[in-house]
Amino acid sequence: MATPRPALTPVPFTNVRFTDGFWAPRQEVNHRVTLPHQYRVCKKTGRLDALRLDWKPGQPNPPHIFWESDVAKWLEAAACSYSLFPDPALKRRMDEVAALIAGAQQPDGYINAHYTCVEPDKRWSNLRDCHELYCAGHLIEGAVAHFQSTGERTALDALCRYADYIDATFGRAPGKKRGYPGHEELELALVKLYRATGHDRYLRLARYFVDERGRRPHYFDREAKARGEAPKAYWARTYEYCQAHRPVREQSEVVGHAVRAFYLYSGMADVAGLTGDAALLAACRRLWDDATRHKLYLTGGVGPSRHNEGFTARYDLPNETAYAETCAAIAFVFFAHRMLQLEADGRYADAMERALYNGVLSGVSLDGTRFFYENPLTSSGRHHRQDWFSCACCPPNLARLLASLGQYAYSAGGDALYVHLYAGGEACAEVAGTTVRLHVETDYPWEGAVRVRVEPAAPARFDLRLRVPGWCPSVALAVNGRPVKASAARGYVGLRRLWSAGDTVELELAMPVERMAAHPAVLANIGKVALMRGPLVYCFEECDNPAVLSLTLPRRARLSARFVPGLLGGVSVIEGQGLQVASEGWQNQLYRPAAALATRPARIRAIPYYAWDNRQPGAMTVWLPETT
Amino acid sequence: MATPRPALTPVPFTNVRFTDGFWAPRQEVNHRVTLPHQYRVCKKTGRLDALRLDWKPGQPNPPHIFWESDVAKWLEAAACSYSLFPDPALKRRMDEVAALIAGAQQPDGYINAHYTCVEPDKRWSNLRDCHELYCAGHLIEGAVAHFQSTGERTALDALCRYADYIDATFGRAPGKKRGYPGHEELELALVKLYRATGHDRYLRLARYFVDERGRRPHYFDREAKARGEAPKAYWARTYEYCQAHRPVREQSEVVGHAVRAFYLYSGMADVAGLTGDAALLAACRRLWDDATRHKLYLTGGVGPSRHNEGFTARYDLPNETAYAETCAAIAFVFFAHRMLQLEADGRYADAMERALYNGVLSGVSLDGTRFFYENPLTSSGRHHRQDWFSCACCPPNLARLLASLGQYAYSAGGDALYVHLYAGGEACAEVAGTTVRLHVETDYPWEGAVRVRVEPAAPARFDLRLRVPGWCPSVALAVNGRPVKASAARGYVGLRRLWSAGDTVELELAMPVERMAAHPAVLANIGKVALMRGPLVYCFEECDNPAVLSLTLPRRARLSARFVPGLLGGVSVIEGQGLQVASEGWQNQLYRPAAALATRPARIRAIPYYAWDNRQPGAMTVWLPETT
Repeated sequence: MATPRPALTPVPFTNVRFTDGFWAPRQEVNHRVTLPHQYRVCKKTGRLDALRLDWKPGQPNPPHIFWESDVAKWLEAAACSYSLFPDPALKRRMDEVAALIAGAQQPDGYINAHYTCVEPDKRWSNLRDCHELYCAGHLIEGAVAHFQSTGERTALDALCRYADYIDATFGRAPGKKRGYPGHEELELALVKLYRATGHDRYLRLARYFVDERGRRPHYFDREAKARGEAPKAYWARTYEYCQAHRPVREQSEVVGHAVRAFYLYSGMADVAGLTGDAALLAACRRLWDDATRHKLYLTGGVGPSRHNEGFTARYDLPNETAYAETCAAIAFVFFAHRMLQLEADGRYADAMERALYNGVLSGVSLDGTRFFYENPLTSSGRHHRQDWFSCACCPPNLARLLASLGQYAYSAGGDALYVHLYAGGEACAEVAGTTVRLHVETDYPWEGAVRVRVEPAAPARFDLRLRVPGWCPSVALAVNGRPVKASAARGYVGLRRLWSAGDTVELELAMPVERMAAHPAVLANIGKVALMRGPLVYCFEECDNPAVLSLTLPRRARLSARFVPGLLGGVSVIEGQGLQVASEGWQNQLYRPAAALATRPARIRAIPYYAWDNRQPGAMTVWLPETT
Repeated sequence: MATPRPALTPVPFTNVRFTDGFWAPRQEVNHRVTLPHQYRVCKKTGRLDALRLDWKPGQPNPPHIFWESDVAKWLEAAACSYSLFPDPALKRRMDEVAALIAGAQQPDGYINAHYTCVEPDKRWSNLRDCHELYCAGHLIEGAVAHFQSTGERTALDALCRYADYIDATFGRAPGKKRGYPGHEELELALVKLYRATGHDRYLRLARYFVDERGRRPHYFDREAKARGEAPKAYWARTYEYCQAHRPVREQSEVVGHAVRAFYLYSGMADVAGLTGDAALLAACRRLWDDATRHKLYLTGGVGPSRHNEGFTARYDLPNETAYAETCAAIAFVFFAHRMLQLEADGRYADAMERALYNGVLSGVSLDGTRFFYENPLTSSGRHHRQDWFSCACCPPNLARLLASLGQYAYSAGGDALYVHLYAGGEACAEVAGTTVRLHVETDYPWEGAVRVRVEPAAPARFDLRLRVPGWCPSVALAVNGRPVKASAARGYVGLRRLWSAGDTVELELAMPVERMAAHPAVLANIGKVALMRGPLVYCFEECDNPAVLSLTLPRRARLSARFVPGLLGGVSVIEGQGLQVASEGWQNQLYRPAAALATRPARIRAIPYYAWDNRQPGAMTVWLPETT
């Protein structure tokens, strides 16, 4: 393999602890409420017991082809959470789940309850649609996290055996199948397995899956014919749906199912970084640019269409029908995080932060029990979170992301220590040969002041690089109380000096209320503005703003932010004077010759988008028409 | 039965002939192109041959539960068209189809190929979903038209036997099923059969079906249980879908599947008029008000949602996702036409005209071969007419409406003769005991001048009532060249005098370009305007207006209409200066802090909505944002 690209290394979630007022309570609720809730649902719906492999034909509730993925994501979430909250009862439960997974393994290494019990003759017969390799990826991720958090090898060893069996089954050598996952996920998981075990063969297998995708003759064509189906009868009509329309190095457009897309791109970035594959990295950059220039909601949501759970045309970003699946925003975070490590450029951190604070976090209620699958930017009042979904990918995906959030905040690279995300707490990293602890105090995202105390084990010279977010119009910096000129390059201000225990950095990020506009090609938002403050996108809810969907915002309206401790767990609201479109005088007319729009003043209040639908159900909108 | 309500009687289609430049060519294309095209498709898809009842289990292409309705609508369309174009070949083809229908009749009178050949044990087992009674209705309408146009009784006699069998099967008498159609249609058809035959029992049966609908215990519940299904497992979840959620006299809200709704309301209006049932008429009025005040597109389209092919909430009228099925607009015309006869109020004619010239006529291409099922008011360029649909209700529904359009133009009532729609041609009616011919000359809808020559068989005193459309801001009137004061009441100016052959009335309807606004509760159209001129709604197509979806219309833009003979069969276009939202200076940004909207002047041209998607495929919109 080629020389790996110099890159950052994330500080692992086991070394980061948040103690702030924003993320720490979410992690606590995730641990205390969400994880037990999701375990109960996995139990109740048969997902766990399916792994006992005692389902017999004719019985109800046969194991589904992707049930393993839900169980595995729960295990991963629990393992990450365990590193924050080392609860022996959770440990026992995780170990039981790991044992169930290992117990479901067949003599040859295979694990999938559906294809073991329900359709034993159909194994590997439909990679395009049937999620076996996708489940394998999630099982690997769960096993790796379980091992990293607890040292337990039960699941890890089983998944190594499964990965070895997959390696023996797929590849270019004679007698192997030249297949690859229809739903990507295994690629990035194999890279994790490689990192956890050090075995090159897992990285090589990940690279094979990435490389083989979309080549001719097309595997999914051959596979369909072998099933007696016409390849053209593919229900999704185009292999763009699963990003297999052409080899990945030739791809430049973000297409198809959004979660699949960003899981693939994440695996591509992983492989590109570890193998120094410049053409693959170039494809990642092109896809990144297409996503962030043309296909990203203000909230970091991606994939506008319910039809393919994914992408349509450039700039097609409707608000009310936005699909913007929670899992897709999470997958986008994965890709952003990987590109950030490869390129050390703040624009990746900006996008990652945008998604985390908005389109990802909206996916779970404040009490941790209810979830959005879709995250529209406008709702007429009928869209609400649910306990669970029959296709239950999003809730455990949120749980694992929240539990492992620490790993997104810091990176180390050479003699530099990067702070990407600001949250009160502690982190511990190896930099320039020294163990460095950082203690962070901040009320971010409500205030832009951040105080970082640096505690190297011994005085050490290194570059502390603090992110200056793209949304931030001005920044002030001081070291040990003395102002320092802060000039950011590629999104970071660097402080290269000899650091001693107790050195303190103060960063002040200006955080005004911003009125945002979308590119005029985004037809849904022509003439509209949305409010942001810091990383947070705001929205207007009906319970604060009657008839919210007929509000407009005058261009010169004064808007101010105010922290309200008792509201929604404590949030800054944005308030001001808007205009309400008046409907007096219309009587029973539905249409009439146009006159100037009649409006009346109305107090308006916006809350952070992530917190919507936690009070009385009602309408909501992010974008408001702007009036002069 | 109670005393029938005094009402107007439509002048039948057999007595009206258009010779104008607008409708006559559409009727000619309908006859020459559309009817043969549809016959071929009915033949090719097996719809016609299914009536031979020779399908056997195991063979491909089994007769579908509603294929009869397509064949019957074709017969009705052909019969109406035959009265305009008495083509012997068409007559033979109609007679063959009538014979096929009669030949498919079972000894007990039943006609339905699916339930005769495919599921003979399931007859009448699922009225809620399975369309047998719906097909019966269309067969009756086809048979009645065939008889009225040709005098042939083959189909009519068969359908009388079928109606008698239905009458013996359904009703309140002991031993009968207390069912009614899941998809309404038979109600209005039975009234037609009553009018054609004079047999009271068909009117009584129509009244029974109207009355029984939605009563408790609910027939669809009992029927589901008899099939071994839980009533709550109803796929549509609510009997609102088929307007069977409560008895019709208690209904005030237009709900559910739009075609079903307006076919039902049409049947209700028929029964109310013929039986003098005041409570039923009151329900019709409430439903009319709800439809026209809250649920009608500017084009006369109805039913915004694809989900239920029907209605959602008040004022929910999205443009791009507008379902607005062609059949629903046609069904709305049926209801409007019936209410117009009952109430002699121009607002019904206004709504009927709105639908006919816009949301109905858009359903067929200018060449008569391609059809819209859905009629959105905005398209990003991916919505186009098709040859046919697997659920093929719309194309033959359009064909029968166009062929029978004459019947919507005139009514007689007491000593009054009403002109509802203006189109050059002739009509012949009985008024005040005299046969009166009207000769109309006009370039309507392009010009508002209408010249009517009155030709009574002998001089006669009657009231000639000419409609003054709701869209018309001012009107001038002259009789035999002398101006007459024109004051409209309930939408008509009345000229009561002794009419002699050759008397001439000149009506001048002002027809300015109007900028229309929607009620502010229609969120999709806040801040937007649409253009109308006369009865025509206009739209902007991409092939006339590059980047059409980012056009805006300044409030003071001068707009003028101009007839362009070679365009789209000859249309008046509306032209002026608009503003194009500019996207220069955005480079690769997708979001940025808001500034004033940058625009540049752009010539704009609108064409009648009905004529869109007849040139290069592209984007289209009816509503444009208004700028100051």
